[in-house]
Amino acid sequence: MRRKIAILGATGSIGKSTLDLIERNPERFEVTAVTAASNVDTLADIARRTQARLAVIADENRLVELRQLLAGNDCRVAGGKDALIEAVDGADLVIAAIVGCAGRRPVMAAGEAGRTGALANKEALVTAGALMTDAAAASGATLIPVDSEHNAIFQCLAGSRAEDVSRIILPARGGPFRTASAEGIRAATPAQAVAHPNWSMGAKISVDSATLMNKGLELIEAHFLFGLPSRLLDVVVHPQSVIHSLVEFIDGSMLAQLGSPDMRIPIAYALAWPERLPTPAHRLDLAAIGRLDFEAPDVQRFPALKLAREALEAGGAAPIVLNAANEVSVASFLAGEIRLSDIAISVEEALQSTQFDAPRSISDVLEIDRVTRARAQAMMKANCS
Amino acid sequence: MRRKIAILGATGSIGKSTLDLIERNPERFEVTAVTAASNVDTLADIARRTQARLAVIADENRLVELRQLLAGNDCRVAGGKDALIEAVDGADLVIAAIVGCAGRRPVMAAGEAGRTGALANKEALVTAGALMTDAAAASGATLIPVDSEHNAIFQCLAGSRAEDVSRIILPARGGPFRTASAEGIRAATPAQAVAHPNWSMGAKISVDSATLMNKGLELIEAHFLFGLPSRLLDVVVHPQSVIHSLVEFIDGSMLAQLGSPDMRIPIAYALAWPERLPTPAHRLDLAAIGRLDFEAPDVQRFPALKLAREALEAGGAAPIVLNAANEVSVASFLAGEIRLSDIAISVEEALQSTQFDAPRSISDVLEIDRVTRARAQAMMKANCS
Repeated sequence: MRRKIAILGATGSIGKSTLDLIERNPERFEVTAVTAASNVDTLADIARRTQARLAVIADENRLVELRQLLAGNDCRVAGGKDALIEAVDGADLVIAAIVGCAGRRPVMAAGEAGRTGALANKEALVTAGALMTDAAAASGATLIPVDSEHNAIFQCLAGSRAEDVSRIILPARGGPFRTASAEGIRAATPAQAVAHPNWSMGAKISVDSATLMNKGLELIEAHFLFGLPSRLLDVVVHPQSVIHSLVEFIDGSMLAQLGSPDMRIPIAYALAWPERLPTPAHRLDLAAIGRLDFEAPDVQRFPALKLAREALEAGGAAPIVLNAANEVSVASFLAGEIRLSDIAISVEEALQSTQFDAPRSISDVLEIDRVTRARAQAMMKANCS
Repeated sequence: MRRKIAILGATGSIGKSTLDLIERNPERFEVTAVTAASNVDTLADIARRTQARLAVIADENRLVELRQLLAGNDCRVAGGKDALIEAVDGADLVIAAIVGCAGRRPVMAAGEAGRTGALANKEALVTAGALMTDAAAASGATLIPVDSEHNAIFQCLAGSRAEDVSRIILPARGGPFRTASAEGIRAATPAQAVAHPNWSMGAKISVDSATLMNKGLELIEAHFLFGLPSRLLDVVVHPQSVIHSLVEFIDGSMLAQLGSPDMRIPIAYALAWPERLPTPAHRLDLAAIGRLDFEAPDVQRFPALKLAREALEAGGAAPIVLNAANEVSVASFLAGEIRLSDIAISVEEALQSTQFDAPRSISDVLEIDRVTRARAQAMMKANCS
């Protein structure tokens, strides 16, 4: 029987890679539902190609257009954020690839419904990690992370007992300022911060890579996904980014997952788990690569790593505040309003002034997020004026 | 319930490491039987410490001595090679750590009896691989390799389907002549070949490391243990020997096992499988290690690798001939009778002059082994005189 797949965020890059793999293996998968934020043309095209039974556009204003584009097709159409949640119905596996905060509710719905969820949404785990993993545990859902680091950990843990794990190590590429002085980092321009040697990422993610906040957010994700406390979660700088994560066991043995930078590898793993799916991804040739380097991260020059760890350890609302304050600060940096080194200062201020109770629902999460952003923006304005 | 362990070869280094782990975890293991080749004093001491129910000495001439040493203990004693086989009775896990050819029959007995066998004996798999894996498959026995490379592969494969594996990569340290010229290798003395920077090994194994024959023999072992053909088995030179093996899957993902050079790690894995056992082994610190290097092996300078692959591909008696001719040639090199580069030449001659049928029993294996050694020795003598 074919595995039924719902793709939330079908028009983005994770959605496209997922469709590429599904179309290479039509005997193994069937697409039940596809969703997009606002790109009706691509969504309609995908719905026709996959013969999905449901297509949902989050922007209700585009629903009429979507209906026209899919007229005559055997595909129900729907619009609005609540309709996104319907897309999980009847799926064996939900690919949760909606970018940013919009992904939180549908991911939560997938977890509550006991579906296997392939998670490609950092925000959901960072800001609502405890809620999501609790919901998944209560319903028996399995959450398979799709980003390369956490997918690597998931692969290394296959067949192991949680109590046999002694440490998880996340490699960090190190960003464009890996070898820069503290003064060089302070003076970095947005153009320098966004420059990335290996692949093109969005500007926000590039800045997070430059400050190592991306790795801090990943530490928080790893904590929620794998249930390990901060002291058992490490970061090592590994510029080649060939090793995607390592797991150490109580016997001293370590398992590592390696691969070329092709998102189809972790997506294929999520699609086929616990089996594997062939992909056309480039095979690693270690002799051609020649060497892999490792160094300890410098939390003096990259304080974001320390702040993320503090937020993880504080728990409750702290990761939401960290994430929201960071997003506002990064936007401010990209707009030329603050220095790169000011991002960590703003985030630290936000964390120190926090008085929120721990969130009990996704609505709480969204409210803490909203208030933190408003405060951080006000603070930016005050500092810049 | 405690797991019942029989230790064949209890007085050697694998036996000692096994006992160290068992004595650290008395609530998890009980030792049912211990054996040794001829070291009665140590064997009696181990039998008393572990309260084993059976102690077997392979050298029958020492049986009276063993009986005296264990008088008054609730431990049956036995002597002779046939008695070694009795030691597998009633064990949940047989640690097969008898060095050299003497290990073949007891390992086979463990496989036939459907016991889980922890294999620390290269010769058994290289020379009787098909027989052993067939016997284990027929009886439902699981063979867990204990040498660090194959144990690493076993760890990487945990929870995977055989059909999802696309390649196995064995790292080779590269030996003392890794960067030497062909002429330098030709002129190498036994003292140079046996020098090993990281740990002390026996002279024979050191020479095999210098010629890369050790890696060739491991390719053959990997073939039998994991059922992959020669073309899906690779070798990469990795001087730091931190990665112990890698497995590539059909999706392009690779898993690697890493660890410090402490045999207690793979032994602990075999003892506790599918769980894990704490060990005091040194934890890897990748930042302190700094870098891992990789290069392609050079089969021109290290033809043993090519010969081993040819023997693997030829199958039948060829691996037995490879192993026996190599042992005789290495002894001859250590005795100063031939050059290092002559080892591969002798092995190639032995392989080319081979006309044996495929072995159908361990007796066939032993006979092919005996005849090959006699021929190789005669050839050495003829060449040296």
